[in-house]
Amino acid sequence: MAEQIEFDQAHQTLQEVSEALENGRFVYVRRQLQDMEPEDIAHLLEASPRKSREVLWQLTDPEDYGEILDELNEDVKDGLVSKMAPEKLAEATEGMDTDDVAYVLRSLPDDVSREVLSQMDTADRLRVETALSYPEDSAGGIMNTDFITIRGDVDIDVVLRYLRMKGELPEATDALYVIDDEDMLIGHLSLATLLTSQPDVKVADVMDDADEAIHVETSDSDVASLFERRDWVSAPVVDSQQHLVGRITIDDVVDIIREDAEHSMMSMAGMDDDEDTFAPVVKSARRRSVWLGANVLAALAAASVSNMFEATLEQMAAIAILMTIVPSMGGVAGNQTIALVIRGLALGHIGDSNRRELLLKEAAIGLLNGILWALIIGGIVVAWKSNWVLGGIISAAMLTNLVVAGIAGVTIPILLKKLNIDPALAGGMALTTITDVVGLSVFLGLATLLIT
Amino acid sequence: MAEQIEFDQAHQTLQEVSEALENGRFVYVRRQLQDMEPEDIAHLLEASPRKSREVLWQLTDPEDYGEILDELNEDVKDGLVSKMAPEKLAEATEGMDTDDVAYVLRSLPDDVSREVLSQMDTADRLRVETALSYPEDSAGGIMNTDFITIRGDVDIDVVLRYLRMKGELPEATDALYVIDDEDMLIGHLSLATLLTSQPDVKVADVMDDADEAIHVETSDSDVASLFERRDWVSAPVVDSQQHLVGRITIDDVVDIIREDAEHSMMSMAGMDDDEDTFAPVVKSARRRSVWLGANVLAALAAASVSNMFEATLEQMAAIAILMTIVPSMGGVAGNQTIALVIRGLALGHIGDSNRRELLLKEAAIGLLNGILWALIIGGIVVAWKSNWVLGGIISAAMLTNLVVAGIAGVTIPILLKKLNIDPALAGGMALTTITDVVGLSVFLGLATLLIT
Repeated sequence: MAEQIEFDQAHQTLQEVSEALENGRFVYVRRQLQDMEPEDIAHLLEASPRKSREVLWQLTDPEDYGEILDELNEDVKDGLVSKMAPEKLAEATEGMDTDDVAYVLRSLPDDVSREVLSQMDTADRLRVETALSYPEDSAGGIMNTDFITIRGDVDIDVVLRYLRMKGELPEATDALYVIDDEDMLIGHLSLATLLTSQPDVKVADVMDDADEAIHVETSDSDVASLFERRDWVSAPVVDSQQHLVGRITIDDVVDIIREDAEHSMMSMAGMDDDEDTFAPVVKSARRRSVWLGANVLAALAAASVSNMFEATLEQMAAIAILMTIVPSMGGVAGNQTIALVIRGLALGHIGDSNRRELLLKEAAIGLLNGILWALIIGGIVVAWKSNWVLGGIISAAMLTNLVVAGIAGVTIPILLKKLNIDPALAGGMALTTITDVVGLSVFLGLATLLIT
Repeated sequence: MAEQIEFDQAHQTLQEVSEALENGRFVYVRRQLQDMEPEDIAHLLEASPRKSREVLWQLTDPEDYGEILDELNEDVKDGLVSKMAPEKLAEATEGMDTDDVAYVLRSLPDDVSREVLSQMDTADRLRVETALSYPEDSAGGIMNTDFITIRGDVDIDVVLRYLRMKGELPEATDALYVIDDEDMLIGHLSLATLLTSQPDVKVADVMDDADEAIHVETSDSDVASLFERRDWVSAPVVDSQQHLVGRITIDDVVDIIREDAEHSMMSMAGMDDDEDTFAPVVKSARRRSVWLGANVLAALAAASVSNMFEATLEQMAAIAILMTIVPSMGGVAGNQTIALVIRGLALGHIGDSNRRELLLKEAAIGLLNGILWALIIGGIVVAWKSNWVLGGIISAAMLTNLVVAGIAGVTIPILLKKLNIDPALAGGMALTTITDVVGLSVFLGLATLLIT
């Protein structure tokens, strides 16, 4: 059976389960859930409204809890975990990766998290406590501790026999790590090298050296960009003394890449990237109102500018009718530039060396599009309002505002980044305020000078 | 040496090379480039303004061209490739993956691409022509043809000896594919299983079966979501008769995930996700003006609404001053909803079964935030303009517009998707037009009724 068919079936199952749930056919749903993979149950939970989600969780086999929690979106995970008893949670952690257990514990109140830890067996607890000692968004926070180490002075044949004896490799293992007597990482032996080397050569003679190890304090975004550039499947993590402390695998990195990219998109609209599609109304409304509050200030700033020209507005209603066009075009053009710059900053393409170049380029684009739209809008206004002066004024304001939008679109995100403020979150709002104020000032100012 | 240090060095190299280039120290730059990994040269090229980019390309060892082209952003790749002679390009393709060669050829004029193909050796040409026969955004378009096949009836020991004889495995190999006499995929043997099985067992007895194969026509986004959910490192691709035709590896999937996520962010700002940070001014200006043109229509629609209330605006300048606040808040609130819905659609969380739930939730959030900001803005207006009626009018308009924004924010992207129009691209503009028109109509309409 080809995967396309299986993929379509997954969508269909989702539909069927939701319907069965609505009709109260719980036995049927429980049976369906038993046949599903944990990652598909996670997807079903994410795609379900909150009410159904809790019922589905009750109907799921608790044995799968760990693996499902591993796959869930953070907001959804928090919601389910907050309702579980500590001993149930401790049981569930047995099926989870160390980094995911650490994540779940971080989101719990201190006393609950201590209780869950106390219910875990000693080896697991130590591993989780180590993970908890690193920041959540560092290599230490996303690494796992399941890897295979070997010595450099043994033969390939010995390694092969050792693996056969073990009978199983940790998930996504593509290399064994070579350490010395003091647990220092001295190299790694990829499975490909292991399989293509002669049985009687020493590991040290065919292994790759250890200069590719990730330091435990490297930020998760830097880890992601290393994986992306080097096409790694997994990589060892070392502390400052080069001791091997963990391993990061591509599946965790894929999550980071997706989250980073989603973060930019959601932030630009003033949203939290953890936001659950079916979050509770009051919680969502509160989160979002912060952003609306920022926009009130921006809108009031624009209104204050118009207010300064009250006399002009009183004299000619056409000015009031047309005054929103220039700010609107400036906002759209500036946001195009900001999207480009935010992506460039995230990918590490923009730095001190090319900032000036970028500024000139965006200003030039603003100038070109400014000329184009100044002519078109000017023409429309002359035709509509039969007023050549008004047409000239709107053209001049349009040209100015699109150039300002290009310059502000480059400057604002770079400046915010230097100030350690997230450019994706604050950039668009700051830009719109500037293009609104400049657009209105120039348009209304010129109108005051030339018409009234 | 820990990777953190290497990572910082990469940034420093970028800075040094740019400076050396500006000072015309070409010999130094050439030497630096020789010491760099192809993926780092690709990053340097992407982060360089267009002028420097061409100089850097000239200074790069042509032997690395293939691997560098593999790693480049599409727009940047197109720019460099369009200036290369067909025979140089044919040489460069020798270092490239089949899917990347196909990508490059697709972007060239037909006669040039035919000439490049004719310069390649027969085996490579056949592989590339096969890749070209599938759509670019399907599994067939992103798969590679370098994989290892084995038979099910041989012993593990035979496989081990075969691999040692080969001496090398294709990149990111985590499994060997088991086929029958007719090239039909019957299973796969992971390297982990190969390493942990006894030498005398048959492959067929320990292999996993073939139900995880991806069909060659599956879309690339579906491929990416399968990899993400199943935590795969690589997966076999089969045609409708279950013949093994290729292999997809995680590094290509990571690119798709990043591109899909960037697509949403860039599209929402009206930008092309392939857009090179340093694209030529005229080309960028032309691309972006299409979007500005759409916004002109939206802005003119809003102006036409104000135009209908010309008499009201003439009577009271305060109305003109305040009339931009309600549309602005509606636009921001609606864009929050749209970002959430677009992400939900992309992740497959939103379907027929939960649409109503989502609509009610977003309308309720609009109502709550509508009440909050109606009170605040109403209060501000009463305090500022000492006019209770005007305060009441703006409150009523605000409340209406935020509820409309919530409903439109859910409805528009879902509707666009049904019509096969990209919701990320067209959603925001359609929404802003609606919130502008509704906000202005209600505010100016009530003002006309109650004040003038």
